[in-house]
Amino acid sequence: MLQPHHDGSPLHVSDSAPKLGEVVRVRVRIPHAFGPVAEVRTRSNPDHEPRFSDAERIASDTGWDWWEAPVEVENPVHGYRFLITRTDGSSVWLNATGVWTTETLDADDFRLVAYDAPPEWVRSTVLYQLFPDRFARSAAADARQTPDWAIPAAWGDPVDDVPPGRSQQFYGGDLDGAAQRLDYLAALGVTLVYLTPVFPARSNHRYDATSFTRVDPLLGGDEALARFVAEAHQRGLKVIGDLTTNHCGDGHEWFQAAYGHPDAPESDFFYWLDDEHTQYVAWLGVLSLPKLNWGSPELRRRFIEGPESVVAQWLRPPYSLDGWRIDVANMTGRYRDDDFNAEVRRIIRRTMLDVNPDTILLGESTNDAAPDFQGDAWHGAMTYANFTRPVWGWLSEPGSPSTYFGQPVGVIPSYTGRELADAHTRFAAAFPWRVRLGTMNALDTHDVPRFRTHARPGTVPVAFGLSVTMPGIPVVWAGDELGLKADDGEGARMPMPWHLLDHGANADGDDVDPATGATATDARATLELYTELIALRRNHVALNDGGFRWLHVGDDVLVFVREHADESVLVIASRGAADVRLPYEAASGWDQARVVAGEVALAVDAPGDEDEGGVRLVTSGPQFAAIVLPGLSVAG
Amino acid sequence: MLQPHHDGSPLHVSDSAPKLGEVVRVRVRIPHAFGPVAEVRTRSNPDHEPRFSDAERIASDTGWDWWEAPVEVENPVHGYRFLITRTDGSSVWLNATGVWTTETLDADDFRLVAYDAPPEWVRSTVLYQLFPDRFARSAAADARQTPDWAIPAAWGDPVDDVPPGRSQQFYGGDLDGAAQRLDYLAALGVTLVYLTPVFPARSNHRYDATSFTRVDPLLGGDEALARFVAEAHQRGLKVIGDLTTNHCGDGHEWFQAAYGHPDAPESDFFYWLDDEHTQYVAWLGVLSLPKLNWGSPELRRRFIEGPESVVAQWLRPPYSLDGWRIDVANMTGRYRDDDFNAEVRRIIRRTMLDVNPDTILLGESTNDAAPDFQGDAWHGAMTYANFTRPVWGWLSEPGSPSTYFGQPVGVIPSYTGRELADAHTRFAAAFPWRVRLGTMNALDTHDVPRFRTHARPGTVPVAFGLSVTMPGIPVVWAGDELGLKADDGEGARMPMPWHLLDHGANADGDDVDPATGATATDARATLELYTELIALRRNHVALNDGGFRWLHVGDDVLVFVREHADESVLVIASRGAADVRLPYEAASGWDQARVVAGEVALAVDAPGDEDEGGVRLVTSGPQFAAIVLPGLSVAG
Repeated sequence: MLQPHHDGSPLHVSDSAPKLGEVVRVRVRIPHAFGPVAEVRTRSNPDHEPRFSDAERIASDTGWDWWEAPVEVENPVHGYRFLITRTDGSSVWLNATGVWTTETLDADDFRLVAYDAPPEWVRSTVLYQLFPDRFARSAAADARQTPDWAIPAAWGDPVDDVPPGRSQQFYGGDLDGAAQRLDYLAALGVTLVYLTPVFPARSNHRYDATSFTRVDPLLGGDEALARFVAEAHQRGLKVIGDLTTNHCGDGHEWFQAAYGHPDAPESDFFYWLDDEHTQYVAWLGVLSLPKLNWGSPELRRRFIEGPESVVAQWLRPPYSLDGWRIDVANMTGRYRDDDFNAEVRRIIRRTMLDVNPDTILLGESTNDAAPDFQGDAWHGAMTYANFTRPVWGWLSEPGSPSTYFGQPVGVIPSYTGRELADAHTRFAAAFPWRVRLGTMNALDTHDVPRFRTHARPGTVPVAFGLSVTMPGIPVVWAGDELGLKADDGEGARMPMPWHLLDHGANADGDDVDPATGATATDARATLELYTELIALRRNHVALNDGGFRWLHVGDDVLVFVREHADESVLVIASRGAADVRLPYEAASGWDQARVVAGEVALAVDAPGDEDEGGVRLVTSGPQFAAIVLPGLSVAG
Repeated sequence: MLQPHHDGSPLHVSDSAPKLGEVVRVRVRIPHAFGPVAEVRTRSNPDHEPRFSDAERIASDTGWDWWEAPVEVENPVHGYRFLITRTDGSSVWLNATGVWTTETLDADDFRLVAYDAPPEWVRSTVLYQLFPDRFARSAAADARQTPDWAIPAAWGDPVDDVPPGRSQQFYGGDLDGAAQRLDYLAALGVTLVYLTPVFPARSNHRYDATSFTRVDPLLGGDEALARFVAEAHQRGLKVIGDLTTNHCGDGHEWFQAAYGHPDAPESDFFYWLDDEHTQYVAWLGVLSLPKLNWGSPELRRRFIEGPESVVAQWLRPPYSLDGWRIDVANMTGRYRDDDFNAEVRRIIRRTMLDVNPDTILLGESTNDAAPDFQGDAWHGAMTYANFTRPVWGWLSEPGSPSTYFGQPVGVIPSYTGRELADAHTRFAAAFPWRVRLGTMNALDTHDVPRFRTHARPGTVPVAFGLSVTMPGIPVVWAGDELGLKADDGEGARMPMPWHLLDHGANADGDDVDPATGATATDARATLELYTELIALRRNHVALNDGGFRWLHVGDDVLVFVREHADESVLVIASRGAADVRLPYEAASGWDQARVVAGEVALAVDAPGDEDEGGVRLVTSGPQFAAIVLPGLSVAG
């Protein structure tokens, strides 16, 4: 079962941020169990034409040989795979999806990327997503006038998830309120705060911006954003904003100028369907969200291109945002036979690099994201295909009815562990490694039901454990760390039940909060779990920068290892009692193994003269556990 | 084992050449064995955002239901898949690679294409490839002076496959010689002649053109091409030429003008590495083949864009070529961070559409071709990944040493039937259906060893049988139909041994021809085989326009069916004795089954009260056989 392995981590790739034309050394590790190896080569595909380079055997460790080859980075995205030939003449291909006896697709190649590298901190990020109207409310909010579109709600009121309340119910959360909770976020251990939109709008979600050049006064205005970011930075937290590059609100100043005015300078910012410019293309036909036409040079100049653009404005002091999350990045610039998507995302990143290269750019692309996420612009994806839905499929109660991410399946699909691993590999392998590290491992977001709602009993630690240990950015959607549940994305936007932490509803904290269905006891226990797992992530470099190798994939249990030169972390995740046997060579340094999270019985049987030895991992029920092992040395 | 099925054929898609915005009806056929179905939907991905449409059950036939849904073509390449939900709540996805319980990649979607459609005749084409220096020589050739670069050879001399002979050995074949063999080609049954380059050059292969605006006088000049095409057209044969858009020869007039002359109008046609313009980028570093820089507007104008371009010139009378095959289409326009490939191919096709839309455009892309072959320009690929190498892997003698398409594997990889089917599906499913129909099912070409060289005994009919029955264009590389063998692509370019047909070397024709290793007896038998199999293809519309559905995939035997409204063709291909049992519902109309090619024992057991019935297909050794069945009606 042990297979040749390569991934994009430092153990296997000498430089993850090469320049065009640079020669990178790539290393593949081949288990002796694979059989005697005659030759190992890389197969690159520069200009779509195959080129091979020879590897040499450079080291051995317990049960494995390391081979290394030079690869010249000839295109900005340079694909490569390995061709491994045994002494019996049989050959296999190794690509980002695994080992194949037949030829493989270019899209499944490993990739080196010569575009500008993401900031180093991307890979050690733990992200916290908050929705400003629902996160926290400062005293100043009481003095503000409720806007004409809003239906005011008190913080303890239940969420109204049908129109008009769905978008108009207004709790009045603001940025100064959020700033008062920054100590809480720092204690939780997250490193990056993602604010959903803060621009003025005519809805509680603010995805229908009426301007991109000022912060909504209802949130405290421009100064409140500057204060929030400054306070966050003081605590070592970074902050990113949220831009809708696909559309704006129909109340937006650009749209107002262009609507009915074919001669307006903003006229070509939109897709008009009539000569009078009163009919237009909108996001999924929702007329309050007119779609932007990125064929317009003036739109590019105002919004994304250069130091005077919206993209640049908020990255500069006094706001100093640390980057952007881009809403429906997948649809941006696409309409019928227009496809400006690559141009738009590259211009955005170019502008960011000019203002502050130490910024992150995430794009929303909720399904197969990889075609747009090859490292030219987006550092990572907010997507559900490679992590979120596979985890739901494995850990949700079978047959749970669900709106399920808009897929009309009626119930949450039920996955085996093999299906989780296959789906993860299929979608994640299509990213260059460094994009994979920047991609969000979200259990849920503001757009979908909360994972916990239909989780099998005892599996929240398993799910969030996977979020903090699989390659990618762990994500906490505000309230998940307090155990909130919700059946759909609208209901998931409930106000944070701070009172559960600030003062228990009663002595033992088991009274159910009417607005959220949570209890203080559970909220505190979940917060402790999240805090511990975030600390696990932050304390182990292998979880940021280690490789990723499956050791066991069963229906009910998954085992993988994140390998790194300093130390490795082995993870076991089970949805029921599990008893896993691994070959002794599956990993190394078993005698120094240390369980650092969760509970697992580890029995190591070193190989003897008569037997091959082996390792046994036993859990008694749903369990997430992490085991630290010594680091791996290429010197063998 | 029966699975839901859909493909791009007329039974399943109402319009394979829709306009942007048109609604197409797509149909999926679901076997009762799949289980009770509650709902069927299509899932499109316009602008990279999912959209679903509902299907309804429209008909039933033996053991199957037909469901149909509308799909609006929202982008020029519009992907879609099916979501099938059973009454028990479980769902599967159906895409071009098959049925999945987990989510699938966009690249594996079925596709509707709104770009200009290929000519209708593409799908009924049988292609014959000839290499002018080696195909036939007219008497006029004797009077021509051997050029300075050439090493003259007599027609019966063996091929010299090492430099300098490799490119300089000159047999003096010409276009008038080839024209004299057009009756032979018409009798063979091919419909399209593909001429490798006919432009002047300094090699026998002429891929190092010194001009694109005249035909090599050694081939008879411009008039000889006009005569050849006219003669071919008289016989109902079409003719295409071969253009090198990636490079030209270092003797080319453009390169000569630009070399060492930075101020020449042609200067920006190339990639110069020094200021003096004497160092330059070349195809795989071969300095006689300088790479073209498609960033140059003037190069575009002269070569590919508009009515005065090279591309246009040869499609007009008196030459009237029926299209182009483009050499290394995959590399064209690609260099480091330049990628003009999509622009170049679309301009070429635009120019062709303006001159004569009834022309074909094929592109060479010998590995994973699909990323460039989505229907925007190339009608089909000259590629080896989806058909050629899988067939070699299945039908070659295990362990045969080979240069194998430049892959450094030492021996031809050995495939099971399952591996053939998997590799075929992986690479072919990534094409839109209509591109798949235009893609070349070549057993070999002028660039590779000949298939027969290492074929398992008795498998040439199996291999060419697959070529004429799997979706795509059957290809005869000149000489394959006479049983020629060669160990590499250079040796494969031997002169045609016409004397084996014209007059046997002796009475029984078993003397081995010293130049080619062939015998007259074998040449005649192979020619008969090819003629029969080409006739099979041409006589059955299902082989042009039918669907494609695997019925059985075993190590040593493959069974599939091409389904069509008029009639269906079932194919069995075995590399040894085979005994296959199919469910009775695998196809329909068994009582009217008729074996029309090859030998297979067919036993049909109709279902009774007590048993499900079934169908048995038996072959006694390597065998290709085709069975005609009644057409399939959606009306049920």
